Amino acid sequence: MKPILVVFSGGQDSTTCLFKAIAERGAENVHAVTFNYGQRHALEVKLAREIAEEQHIASFKVITVDWYKDITHNALMDSSETIGHEPGAPFPNTFVEGRNALFLLTAAIYAKSKGIYDIMIGVGEADFSGYPDCREAFVKSMNQTLNLAMDCEFVIHAPLQHMTKAETWALADRLGKLDYIRTRTLTCYEGIPGDGCGKCPSCKLRAAGLKAYLDSRA
Amino acid sequence: MKPILVVFSGGQDSTTCLFKAIAERGAENVHAVTFNYGQRHALEVKLAREIAEEQHIASFKVITVDWYKDITHNALMDSSETIGHEPGAPFPNTFVEGRNALFLLTAAIYAKSKGIYDIMIGVGEADFSGYPDCREAFVKSMNQTLNLAMDCEFVIHAPLQHMTKAETWALADRLGKLDYIRTRTLTCYEGIPGDGCGKCPSCKLRAAGLKAYLDSRA
Repeated sequence: MKPILVVFSGGQDSTTCLFKAIAERGAENVHAVTFNYGQRHALEVKLAREIAEEQHIASFKVITVDWYKDITHNALMDSSETIGHEPGAPFPNTFVEGRNALFLLTAAIYAKSKGIYDIMIGVGEADFSGYPDCREAFVKSMNQTLNLAMDCEFVIHAPLQHMTKAETWALADRLGKLDYIRTRTLTCYEGIPGDGCGKCPSCKLRAAGLKAYLDSRA
Repeated sequence: MKPILVVFSGGQDSTTCLFKAIAERGAENVHAVTFNYGQRHALEVKLAREIAEEQHIASFKVITVDWYKDITHNALMDSSETIGHEPGAPFPNTFVEGRNALFLLTAAIYAKSKGIYDIMIGVGEADFSGYPDCREAFVKSMNQTLNLAMDCEFVIHAPLQHMTKAETWALADRLGKLDYIRTRTLTCYEGIPGDGCGKCPSCKLRAAGLKAYLDSRA
């Protein structure tokens, strides 16, 4: 099996990706990279490491991007801001400009140094917050840009691209990991693992998807 | 005039770009960003700052990327390596994987936070080292990727894209800055400003271009 590098935050989506990669290629071919970029829920880095170690994947790398806060502003990296969606704004104030581009670019540079050309990321454009860098058009363009930048053939895998949150929970269940992902991952903007605060946009999306999936199964 | 952000290293090419931007838009509309990424010729950051201050541009920003060395390896960031071009290798061992993509992405994130959508970079594909991220195909793809990632309309300007080194010297001369750029910028891999060591690939390209231009003028 070819090795793959998963962009892994310790949240629901990327943990589902991690388990999908493990199921398809074996833990010994799965590498993960996590970013510490000043996010308010930095506990996710700790949880990501715990999951990576428990699953005995091939490698786990944390990259700290300490200049992010210095060049852009958003409610995800500024705990003094109230998370919300201003009327008329294209997306919630938790949008981090260029984040998925930075994650994919950095992951690709790191992957190439390890001879890895498959990269997986848990972005999706259904049931998400309208972030432009979660759309397929962006992911495909980024893939081409990476190949041109480094003169090689990366393949970006985005298995959740067109899945609703309910479908992502269904995938977790098929992988036998629904309870694990439900209890061990962190998606909440307030930094509360598992079911989270229940009030932030991220918790609401996650809970609504879970309810929809569990209802469909009942 | 609309503001513009120049990716500015303090080398010949980006300093020529800086003066072109100043000539076209006025120093008060020109911003510059310089990267400190562990390059062996880190003196260029100091020289870049001096040039920026002397020219009274609108702002000058240094971004330190301290994880670069940790995720990739090349002779530009490892002073213990001998700079060279291995037979059969696609480009010299000074190639920094993903560098122009990282510079442009980071510049764009920073630019957007300042309401700037024009970005200038001194890449070119004639008389250069065959680096893939200096080619027009990469720059155009990167431009599209940035627009998709951040849902806006950046314009990347690469005025040296098809210029030889001799033509870049000619442009510097038209801008009235030939002597300034010749003496004040640093392109040499060994970190020697002006005419440099005269022996590294970068000095050779620079000197050959200057000779060609001066000969053509004679």
